[in-house]
Amino acid sequence: MKTATIIIQCPDQKGIVAKVSDFLYSYKGNILEIDQHVDGEIGMFFMRAAWELESFDLEKDKIAEIFQQEVADEFEMKFELYFNTSKPRMAIFVSKLSHCLFDILSRYYSGQFDVEIPLVISNHLELKKVVTAFRIPFYYLPVDKSNKAEVEKQQIELLKQHQVDFVVLARYMQILSGDFIKSFPNQIINIHHSFLPAFVGAKPYHAAYERGVKIIGATAHYVTEELDAGPIIEQEIARVRHHNSPSDLVQIGQDVEKVVLSKAIKYHLERKVLAYRNKTVIFY
Amino acid sequence: MKTATIIIQCPDQKGIVAKVSDFLYSYKGNILEIDQHVDGEIGMFFMRAAWELESFDLEKDKIAEIFQQEVADEFEMKFELYFNTSKPRMAIFVSKLSHCLFDILSRYYSGQFDVEIPLVISNHLELKKVVTAFRIPFYYLPVDKSNKAEVEKQQIELLKQHQVDFVVLARYMQILSGDFIKSFPNQIINIHHSFLPAFVGAKPYHAAYERGVKIIGATAHYVTEELDAGPIIEQEIARVRHHNSPSDLVQIGQDVEKVVLSKAIKYHLERKVLAYRNKTVIFY
Amino acid sequence: MKTATIIIQCPDQKGIVAKVSDFLYSYKGNILEIDQHVDGEIGMFFMRAAWELESFDLEKDKIAEIFQQEVADEFEMKFELYFNTSKPRMAIFVSKLSHCLFDILSRYYSGQFDVEIPLVISNHLELKKVVTAFRIPFYYLPVDKSNKAEVEKQQIELLKQHQVDFVVLARYMQILSGDFIKSFPNQIINIHHSFLPAFVGAKPYHAAYERGVKIIGATAHYVTEELDAGPIIEQEIARVRHHNSPSDLVQIGQDVEKVVLSKAIKYHLERKVLAYRNKTVIFY
Amino acid sequence: MKTATIIIQCPDQKGIVAKVSDFLYSYKGNILEIDQHVDGEIGMFFMRAAWELESFDLEKDKIAEIFQQEVADEFEMKFELYFNTSKPRMAIFVSKLSHCLFDILSRYYSGQFDVEIPLVISNHLELKKVVTAFRIPFYYLPVDKSNKAEVEKQQIELLKQHQVDFVVLARYMQILSGDFIKSFPNQIINIHHSFLPAFVGAKPYHAAYERGVKIIGATAHYVTEELDAGPIIEQEIARVRHHNSPSDLVQIGQDVEKVVLSKAIKYHLERKVLAYRNKTVIFY
Repeated sequence: MKTATIIIQCPDQKGIVAKVSDFLYSYKGNILEIDQHVDGEIGMFFMRAAWELESFDLEKDKIAEIFQQEVADEFEMKFELYFNTSKPRMAIFVSKLSHCLFDILSRYYSGQFDVEIPLVISNHLELKKVVTAFRIPFYYLPVDKSNKAEVEKQQIELLKQHQVDFVVLARYMQILSGDFIKSFPNQIINIHHSFLPAFVGAKPYHAAYERGVKIIGATAHYVTEELDAGPIIEQEIARVRHHNSPSDLVQIGQDVEKVVLSKAIKYHLERKVLAYRNKTVIFY
Repeated sequence: MKTATIIIQCPDQKGIVAKVSDFLYSYKGNILEIDQHVDGEIGMFFMRAAWELESFDLEKDKIAEIFQQEVADEFEMKFELYFNTSKPRMAIFVSKLSHCLFDILSRYYSGQFDVEIPLVISNHLELKKVVTAFRIPFYYLPVDKSNKAEVEKQQIELLKQHQVDFVVLARYMQILSGDFIKSFPNQIINIHHSFLPAFVGAKPYHAAYERGVKIIGATAHYVTEELDAGPIIEQEIARVRHHNSPSDLVQIGQDVEKVVLSKAIKYHLERKVLAYRNKTVIFY
Repeated sequence: MKTATIIIQCPDQKGIVAKVSDFLYSYKGNILEIDQHVDGEIGMFFMRAAWELESFDLEKDKIAEIFQQEVADEFEMKFELYFNTSKPRMAIFVSKLSHCLFDILSRYYSGQFDVEIPLVISNHLELKKVVTAFRIPFYYLPVDKSNKAEVEKQQIELLKQHQVDFVVLARYMQILSGDFIKSFPNQIINIHHSFLPAFVGAKPYHAAYERGVKIIGATAHYVTEELDAGPIIEQEIARVRHHNSPSDLVQIGQDVEKVVLSKAIKYHLERKVLAYRNKTVIFY
Repeated sequence: MKTATIIIQCPDQKGIVAKVSDFLYSYKGNILEIDQHVDGEIGMFFMRAAWELESFDLEKDKIAEIFQQEVADEFEMKFELYFNTSKPRMAIFVSKLSHCLFDILSRYYSGQFDVEIPLVISNHLELKKVVTAFRIPFYYLPVDKSNKAEVEKQQIELLKQHQVDFVVLARYMQILSGDFIKSFPNQIINIHHSFLPAFVGAKPYHAAYERGVKIIGATAHYVTEELDAGPIIEQEIARVRHHNSPSDLVQIGQDVEKVVLSKAIKYHLERKVLAYRNKTVIFY
């Protein structure tokens, strides 16, 4: 089924739901999903609606313009409009660890992710074979202190060339520059291998071991300039015991990481995430 | 804040959300929450909306009538309307086990449950002291095969007398008759001490032990005439290990039971449950 | 069944299990449970064994001495010996919040906790009624900046007078002094309302809300002088969503807190916890 | 580190732990892990011990014989002895679904599974490419009613030829005959896509949807002749909501299936599973 999805944010006020649903109805849109959220602390209204495109009386190309005039202007709305008629294009960045990459490719292979993967970029060669087995172009761009800025340029060039919509850091072991991040606002998903905000930074499993926690976790979040502090999309945990060594924690944690990252990708693909300030609304 | 909540079901068709939200807006209702669900398999539409009463332009007593005329008739809707201006009245049935009762009373005491508890009914005396410590009337109605029908009459009489809206079976060890159940359709919440539909019937923890399961659970559901087969409101689980004896399972399970039952009560109190056929929609 | 339990720690070396189990067997002890753990990072060995007392050939009072001579000396062991023939004596400290207290009393009432509760101490009067309904002495000792040291003296005096073995801080809203803590090393259990080490300190639910986490938690730990940094006994979590307000988090979290605290108490009562450095071994 | 692991079962009696640990100590074995379990209901004792091989004073080939004479005979023990000096050999059976296979191969690739995979057998061709990308031989043996017995013969022949130790049914959509199962007692691991014993048989996700459960699950178990009734090794669950369609449940469930199956394989590989009657002891 061809569908359109709109994600809206604006200052909270009366009549927004009525106005939006009226708009859709007036053009014969059959609403498939509707969800809203009010953040009372800051007085903001958020909404997501999905409807059937085929019977809709407006041309796809005209919807944004007409909606702007008939609805958005009055409520000072910001909105984003998506159509499922073309697949989002996702780039994957990896280093050496394979578990998240495998999990993503497995879902891509089985059709669980409705996405194009035009390229994988890595600073190591280890995962090249796996990627090419799926007939996905693999770009090897080694990074060191001296060439980092240069490599980022190449990466951004490649992403543009392949018309990439969003980037997944599947345990990519490099910190991106502020400039790179600004080029893809809320379009870079990272998996951090701890239950943020616990154990920010490097070696979180070792830190968790040292602290003697009984539960470890993983966090998928949009990348912002402040390290490990971007809007959280999804988190999950696993229990550990005293007899688990740091390397046990790494293994147990990898199962959590891959599931959390793939869930976050799925929410993102289904246009169910709205990031604002340092948080996300997940419409599910 | 004074609020009204409406729960709607009708055959799925275009324009329902628009119509309902228009209705609310036209009388200056500020929508606080709105959620909908379409069961595509059976072509049914479900919706829940909550709005502020104070600024609403319709008298509380007139809302149902006007909504019927202006909205419900056209879409062949069934709907229920609730106001938070009076507290629901809940009766609790218990036997000897105290864990669920304590949990409910604890939440009642701390104000977590916005409810009146006009009475507790039991077929045993063990829990009388606890109940009366909370200044709640305790009715002792012992049951055996010979007097069951008679006792149920008394129970129903008491429930009516105390204007009870719904009944919670907090590990009440008697099976209610079809007649009793029909008097409170989808208004009797039971906690079953297994992860239904596994281990229907008596002694589920022993059955779970025999089967060697690694996870046990509990299920809160509305009571229907078919035993342990009513619409499920909430379920939760706990892990067990080979060294757990049947009595360990009972203890571990009780923690799950009380949390599940209290969650179900909370959903019910907040008008977030819509039961249809043998299922529930939980608007949360 | 009358049983003895021994908890052992010593530098790791060969033959410890053989020596200990031989010792028990040589005096006709029937081993009921045995568990061990080696912390390879620091080269320490930990062990727990429980056995039947009745058929055991050593007098209860002599076991420690003989074990010291025949086993402990050789391996430079530290050990603790417990008998289930007398119940541990637990004091509860509370302020105004009732959920943890209710949960503990509920388990005490139903016999799930094999413990004596000789007294409850509070800096507020709110929970006095509940406590006295269980026929437990309630001591009201209000605390402010000026009298804190003096009140702690009274508290310690009361604990000694009632021969208290360990203390449970059931959401007691005061920070204990280093002197108090030293009087009960690894014998004070606190419940912290966050998933430590995330959100150390006050108002963790509000901090969690601000950060936009998708999971909140609670942590039971032994109290040490460094705030919220003692050995973790148990942790548990609950999922939250964007529409949950800070006060929702408080309520959702309370369910987690009470279960975690009660589990920690149970492990402690069953002599299943061994605290070393900043961690715990949980023999379950 | 080269290690030996022994798994023991015998009627419960005094002195077993002492005898076994003495035996190991007398030959200079450094015990790495020891765990025991008594099933009080049936009076059986179970034990697992792992120790370093290198400093051990008995030849690998002699251990079983000497242990039999010095220990096992006296206690009427049955025992199994494993060495980590050679990798277990695992065959995988698949049909068309790829998620479990991918997950296993991903762990195999990253070294998380210490195993040889000499072959994959399938009744369909879909997954051939994936398997051969990992340089694992793929055998295509289509099955229908007429040739089932014949195909099983070929399968058993292949398993013998490749010296397979155990078989994993990674969503293999055929029911094995009693004869096949008897050839590999407690050496065939199956993943069932429900929380057994709920929803035995085919289409469990659809049955779960019909019943309106709030939690679905998956179960890894050893295959016995009674369908879906063998000893459970591991189970896990995931929450679902009313808006999840049957195909959502399938997708959500696949994440659970693959994690549960891989955990079960890991326990099996690490010799942590002891199956008796219709249950398992998991020494972890």
